[in-house]
Amino acid sequence: MDRPTESTLPLHSKEEEKQPDAGKPEQAEGEAAGPSKNALKKAAKEKAKAEKAAQRAAQQQAAAQATQAEDTAKHLYGKMPDSAEVEDVMNLMKLSDDHYDKEVTIIARVDNARVQSAKLAFLMLRQQGKKIQAVISLKEPLSRQMIKWTGQLNVNSIVQVSGIVKKPEIPVHSASLPNMELHITKVYMISEAIPMLPMQVKDAERPPPESTEEGLVDTDGTLCQFETRLDNRILDLQTETSQAIMAISSGVAQLFSEYMLKSGSRWIFTSKITGAATEGGSGVFEISYFKRKAYLSQSPQLGKQMCIAGDMMSVFEIGPVFRAEDSNTHRHLTEFIGLDFERTFQKHYHEVLDFAENLLVFILSELKIRFKDEIAVVQKSYPKAGEFKLPKDGKALRLKYMEALGFLKEAGVDVSEQERFENDFTTAMEKQLGRIIREKYDTDFYVVDKFPSAVRPFYTKSCPDDPTFSNSYDFFMRGEEIMSGAQRINDAKELEEAMVARGVEPNQEGFEDYINAFRQGCSPHAGGGLGLNRIVQFFLGLPNIRLATLFPRDPQRLRP
Amino acid sequence: MDRPTESTLPLHSKEEEKQPDAGKPEQAEGEAAGPSKNALKKAAKEKAKAEKAAQRAAQQQAAAQATQAEDTAKHLYGKMPDSAEVEDVMNLMKLSDDHYDKEVTIIARVDNARVQSAKLAFLMLRQQGKKIQAVISLKEPLSRQMIKWTGQLNVNSIVQVSGIVKKPEIPVHSASLPNMELHITKVYMISEAIPMLPMQVKDAERPPPESTEEGLVDTDGTLCQFETRLDNRILDLQTETSQAIMAISSGVAQLFSEYMLKSGSRWIFTSKITGAATEGGSGVFEISYFKRKAYLSQSPQLGKQMCIAGDMMSVFEIGPVFRAEDSNTHRHLTEFIGLDFERTFQKHYHEVLDFAENLLVFILSELKIRFKDEIAVVQKSYPKAGEFKLPKDGKALRLKYMEALGFLKEAGVDVSEQERFENDFTTAMEKQLGRIIREKYDTDFYVVDKFPSAVRPFYTKSCPDDPTFSNSYDFFMRGEEIMSGAQRINDAKELEEAMVARGVEPNQEGFEDYINAFRQGCSPHAGGGLGLNRIVQFFLGLPNIRLATLFPRDPQRLRP
Repeated sequence: MDRPTESTLPLHSKEEEKQPDAGKPEQAEGEAAGPSKNALKKAAKEKAKAEKAAQRAAQQQAAAQATQAEDTAKHLYGKMPDSAEVEDVMNLMKLSDDHYDKEVTIIARVDNARVQSAKLAFLMLRQQGKKIQAVISLKEPLSRQMIKWTGQLNVNSIVQVSGIVKKPEIPVHSASLPNMELHITKVYMISEAIPMLPMQVKDAERPPPESTEEGLVDTDGTLCQFETRLDNRILDLQTETSQAIMAISSGVAQLFSEYMLKSGSRWIFTSKITGAATEGGSGVFEISYFKRKAYLSQSPQLGKQMCIAGDMMSVFEIGPVFRAEDSNTHRHLTEFIGLDFERTFQKHYHEVLDFAENLLVFILSELKIRFKDEIAVVQKSYPKAGEFKLPKDGKALRLKYMEALGFLKEAGVDVSEQERFENDFTTAMEKQLGRIIREKYDTDFYVVDKFPSAVRPFYTKSCPDDPTFSNSYDFFMRGEEIMSGAQRINDAKELEEAMVARGVEPNQEGFEDYINAFRQGCSPHAGGGLGLNRIVQFFLGLPNIRLATLFPRDPQRLRP
Repeated sequence: MDRPTESTLPLHSKEEEKQPDAGKPEQAEGEAAGPSKNALKKAAKEKAKAEKAAQRAAQQQAAAQATQAEDTAKHLYGKMPDSAEVEDVMNLMKLSDDHYDKEVTIIARVDNARVQSAKLAFLMLRQQGKKIQAVISLKEPLSRQMIKWTGQLNVNSIVQVSGIVKKPEIPVHSASLPNMELHITKVYMISEAIPMLPMQVKDAERPPPESTEEGLVDTDGTLCQFETRLDNRILDLQTETSQAIMAISSGVAQLFSEYMLKSGSRWIFTSKITGAATEGGSGVFEISYFKRKAYLSQSPQLGKQMCIAGDMMSVFEIGPVFRAEDSNTHRHLTEFIGLDFERTFQKHYHEVLDFAENLLVFILSELKIRFKDEIAVVQKSYPKAGEFKLPKDGKALRLKYMEALGFLKEAGVDVSEQERFENDFTTAMEKQLGRIIREKYDTDFYVVDKFPSAVRPFYTKSCPDDPTFSNSYDFFMRGEEIMSGAQRINDAKELEEAMVARGVEPNQEGFEDYINAFRQGCSPHAGGGLGLNRIVQFFLGLPNIRLATLFPRDPQRLRP
């Protein structure tokens, strides 16, 4: 806003401005030690030259002053006049063929600015990651000063630009609207960015490399670039891809709540601060709570079950889940968004499993419809994983644990550990299973039911006919787990026995209210907990969960 | 489930069972010291009596055994048979006149059970707080054993009951469906409650006394009763009133997200764990975060503003907010649900204020429509505050701070402190203002705009024409603040100056990302933060915010 418009410096591009030597006169060649005849001649020449230059400068200054005095465009650019009428500001993506030859006004960031000549400058404008080219050329009532000011705008500044929509002679392939160009009539500064950004938004437009299972540290330095992006997440969010990912993330929450509310479920909010570390102390963050200790909830598990015991029939929650696990992988965070639900059933936990499968099919297929454009944007940057495949018949594929084990065995995987029913699938096995199922059934979404009891939490109901297995299920997307769920034990005695069998002390602080809930009568129920960030990550095939998280938190990262 | 059905004890009501003396024969009057003639006669009589009694008992036992053998109803009650066909279970409140003389099946809790005679027993059944009376009488194929078993069910057990819907001769006024009665045909145990509950659900049906502004401690002991309810929140949630409050709480979240999504806003999830205590250290909970310290977010303020800087235009969040304040009042919690929003505007922050006012009018008027029945239920317990009044024209009432001050002055309130523009209204003043406005404008919802700058946080934008005041607003319901909002400073230099003026160090850890957001260009924006629990509390006129909170947390309470 404070940039002087009366500068008499020669017009130059931003690139030149960054080279401090560009404007200096070149040093004369062949300069000798003492003054010779030639030298004197030269000096006289120089003097005449300097006089001429001074004369010229004076003329130029006068001309400039004259120009300034007659800056016909003063009210058309610079600081927004307070008295300016409120223009009808348009969303860039609403521009259509109907707007050709009409004047429109948009508010956008300067993605790039370039002075072509004293009579011509270009802007690339960016609005929520979408780009359009704007041109300013010397034509009444615009002025040279306005052209210069416009072409020298700091990148990332937010401006209000009015202009006539024209069809460019050659499509502007670097723009989101290649067949449109704005012929600027007015341009006002809304918020000026500093000249040197810590990172260019266009640098954030390149996808980060695949991160390894083990973590983010890589030898070629490319991952450090990803760290720079996360350090400057605000700039990183301004890319078209980030905007699309955040829109889809919002969409997952929307679709989840839409489905749950339509089913008559109640939206609940369990407390995140708990008095006891009930689900195992190691993964829990400790809080100083006035003069005592408290803990951050690892999941709404106990809370949502207590709602069922409180006669709430079917409940759901959308909220943060905290895990104090020192996991530095592509799919772990210390804080993520849980989509939790819990429902009573009448006869069999498959009533709830059917419900959950339909929920996921609803979310994933509606995403494809409502966020078609955003998905296409993300695919441009992350094409590797390909389109997310849903079962053709609109019904989730459900396998039993033993069937999944069989597929892996068939493929030559050593599952001897898993056949003892004491260890869950490894991440590598899960991924391979994902590939096998994609090949066999042409779907990226499937469900595995009836996990061994030993690999599930203490509150999981065992199969009545074979206690080696349990009424529990995991949901997978592209071979990665996005949900874990089960029928829960709703009998206090059975629950206490299950706890003791797992070495969990039922009489410890924090379990009293939970166990009492079942002593006082509680309907059979089942539920599950989804990870919103993982759904977004695996639906879009993103290499890292941090890309699907607004401000990611991991053992190393606590900002921004 | 393990209750023996072959008991030969005389039938009696639960009330008798609780009086251990009820079954004992009365002591004979006029008993003398030594055996007299009369006494001997009496003894002979007694002997004959005893023999007869023994004979009778033997007969009874035989009869009972016979009856047991021929319990015609064995499959109609007790443990649910595995083979039982899945009945079409009905929601109690879906019962209508159409169901008279038809058999229906419901799953409900035993609210009360009473054996009237060997041939008749009554149940009061409760489903999500709603009640219906059920009767079981001796009629083919039912048996005496079934009647006894039914009448002796433990209170709060969950049962599946089938029966014919009949119109009782006299309406059952204690039931939610006074003109319906279920004539039991089958009754199965789903989940048995222990015989002695720590609290009766009917005890929780009485409203707690008004709590004082200062806290929950009261001398008459009545508030301890409220503490018992909160200790046994799972039972407390089972009342009709709690069910209605929780439905309305769910509704507020639903209506907020509905309005925000319809407006094109994005649902965001800012991190609750932050690296620095940016909004003042005193009110912040500290977390042990691996080998360092972290903090629980006091509000999504900085996060949502960073989203605006990240080009997200309009965002909203529904999530927990943590306050480490040792406030023990009727309207403070250490954890509550914040409904936050932030939006860019084009010309004036009133664009956002208009939006927010319409949002609240939408939520409050839709609550009245969609939760009419639930509101009526709550009003039965909490009639004192009366119906919540909305402005008749559907437009929020907006006052300037100076006008509000004028009303109070007019009413004789000493506002000399407030007239120096350094202190906000006290809670008492706010309440009085609420009464004045209700009288003047017949509304319980209103907005106060243009607060003095000195009483608002550092990031608040001052009025351009008079920096004593600021572009900030509070929303009130029944004279209590439910939202605080403002235009935010979006210029880095202005922000740093405002921080320094308030004694907040701009260069401290945690502010870097926030201030950079504005250095890198950020559109003008405004927003606000609503408290979900307070909206529910004041909409319904509840005396305590804990009633509007699933599992409340305060300085003293960390469970359940």
